[in-house]
Amino acid sequence: MSQAESRTTEGQQIMQPASANQEVSQEQRKVEETLTQTVLASFADCKDPRLKEVMESLVRHLHAFVRDVRLTEEEWNTAIEFLTAVGHITDDKRQEFILLSDVLGVSMQTINVNNATYKDATEATVFGPFFVEDAPEIPIGGDIAGGAPGQPCWVEGTVTDTNGNPVPNARIEVWEADDDGFYDVQYTDGRVSGRAHLYSDENGNYNFWGLTPTPYPIPYDGPVGKMLDATGRSPMRASHLHFMVTAENLRTLVTHIFVDGDELLSSDTVFGVKNSLIKNFTQQSADTPTPDGRDLGGETWSRVNFDIVLAPADV
Amino acid sequence: MSQAESRTTEGQQIMQPASANQEVSQEQRKVEETLTQTVLASFADCKDPRLKEVMESLVRHLHAFVRDVRLTEEEWNTAIEFLTAVGHITDDKRQEFILLSDVLGVSMQTINVNNATYKDATEATVFGPFFVEDAPEIPIGGDIAGGAPGQPCWVEGTVTDTNGNPVPNARIEVWEADDDGFYDVQYTDGRVSGRAHLYSDENGNYNFWGLTPTPYPIPYDGPVGKMLDATGRSPMRASHLHFMVTAENLRTLVTHIFVDGDELLSSDTVFGVKNSLIKNFTQQSADTPTPDGRDLGGETWSRVNFDIVLAPADV
Repeated sequence: MSQAESRTTEGQQIMQPASANQEVSQEQRKVEETLTQTVLASFADCKDPRLKEVMESLVRHLHAFVRDVRLTEEEWNTAIEFLTAVGHITDDKRQEFILLSDVLGVSMQTINVNNATYKDATEATVFGPFFVEDAPEIPIGGDIAGGAPGQPCWVEGTVTDTNGNPVPNARIEVWEADDDGFYDVQYTDGRVSGRAHLYSDENGNYNFWGLTPTPYPIPYDGPVGKMLDATGRSPMRASHLHFMVTAENLRTLVTHIFVDGDELLSSDTVFGVKNSLIKNFTQQSADTPTPDGRDLGGETWSRVNFDIVLAPADV
Repeated sequence: MSQAESRTTEGQQIMQPASANQEVSQEQRKVEETLTQTVLASFADCKDPRLKEVMESLVRHLHAFVRDVRLTEEEWNTAIEFLTAVGHITDDKRQEFILLSDVLGVSMQTINVNNATYKDATEATVFGPFFVEDAPEIPIGGDIAGGAPGQPCWVEGTVTDTNGNPVPNARIEVWEADDDGFYDVQYTDGRVSGRAHLYSDENGNYNFWGLTPTPYPIPYDGPVGKMLDATGRSPMRASHLHFMVTAENLRTLVTHIFVDGDELLSSDTVFGVKNSLIKNFTQQSADTPTPDGRDLGGETWSRVNFDIVLAPADV
């Protein structure tokens, strides 16, 4: 299979495998190009320049995709049927289009584009569908578990800006799945567990009790799950703990921390893992004293350090 | 706005307008490229090489789109909401995803790719959602109207192969909207009108009575209609008469003929128009004798010639 280069506006090079049966005549190419130009011209009267730009780029890439793979009419039909199934399973509780965007890395790429690397600012990752507004407030040192089953995990760190100044009073939202792989909102009993918010202290420090993260699958009983199966992919997410950190004049950070050693780190199905977000969750024996003197009743526990660096709001 | 070139496998050049705010650092580019490569690598275990190829190309183009326009998270949200609305309006009777594919020229580009130009073979165009299996058979010279309102139109021509040999017994399916802009299947009374099939005679000739085509809008009360409106586009289709022609050992032709002089030819909302398919529908006064001596009761009528050339099946 021969390879050809494609270069986008950004100058990045992406390798395009040439499809089979690609003896496309000059005349045929002209027919295809003329069509793309005609579709682009149809947006000439669009009054919103940004919408025009987005639609034009979408058309260019969709057409180039159809031409690159020489999409068959049967494949086009399959795509229409797939999207229809994604639409029909989507409701107030389940968002299969977000899942689709996630497993194609489109969500993560959008996060990347909107959270440019900046000095040593902590990297962002996917938001996910399980954040809830108005999670309970806990004091520093409090427990987010709310009865959720799992191994206790002491999480601590500091919040600073990219000049190394501590950020006091940063709002830290944390949320995670329980030991069975479910978020509270996936249960039907209205429980609130495995989520809370707290504020960093006057020195930018924070700490709390959470649960040692465990892996879980994304919902895979729908069309996206079928697609993962057909393409030989796993529906599993690497173990993680969600953070959203907001502070005045600083860029809001939406991220996770991941568990060093988790074998799913290299195959996270939504591509949320970044090396800088993999943390050492150290296992502690049952008789190791806890940092705050809490009595865990003979359970083992873990601890992790996560220092958060926030970029300026305007980068 | 600066312009940069993009080149796909096919060698076609597509101009990519550079988005505003595109000072993307080397480091940031690397983050974005690494993600795309990671997503591509996730298909390594896909056992179906064609599915793998299609998914990889889709990922490349979707990621390049997000990067080229620097898609904002708000725009991503809008896209998710739009697709959800497209999914929710789609049912057994209405296929908004096909409509979306149509108005982005994706359907037409797929038709192009699968119906390569070949010698003087008649060009293909979009199939549309209104074909029905088992339309009534009419003899040569018969009438497809079945009571549909509109000006009578005498359609005649020959079916040949690309070597100029007549094709006898070609099955010719024809269907069209009535004078009010609706196909029979858009009515709820179960009528069958404006559609039929007939066969070419031993010399490849055919003729029938249809209706002079008139323009009509695609369904525009849904999300696709809103998108057309927001982008300053019209939902109107140029006037046309549908054909599907099948004959042994020859490539099935799905096409339309369009009406020369129709002001919508240059803005057909699904991009079905090709110059070679624009035909001269000549208006006839009420007292002009009809070709078959039929008495039209003092009505004006029109006539058009459409010679159909079928490519070999294997090109």
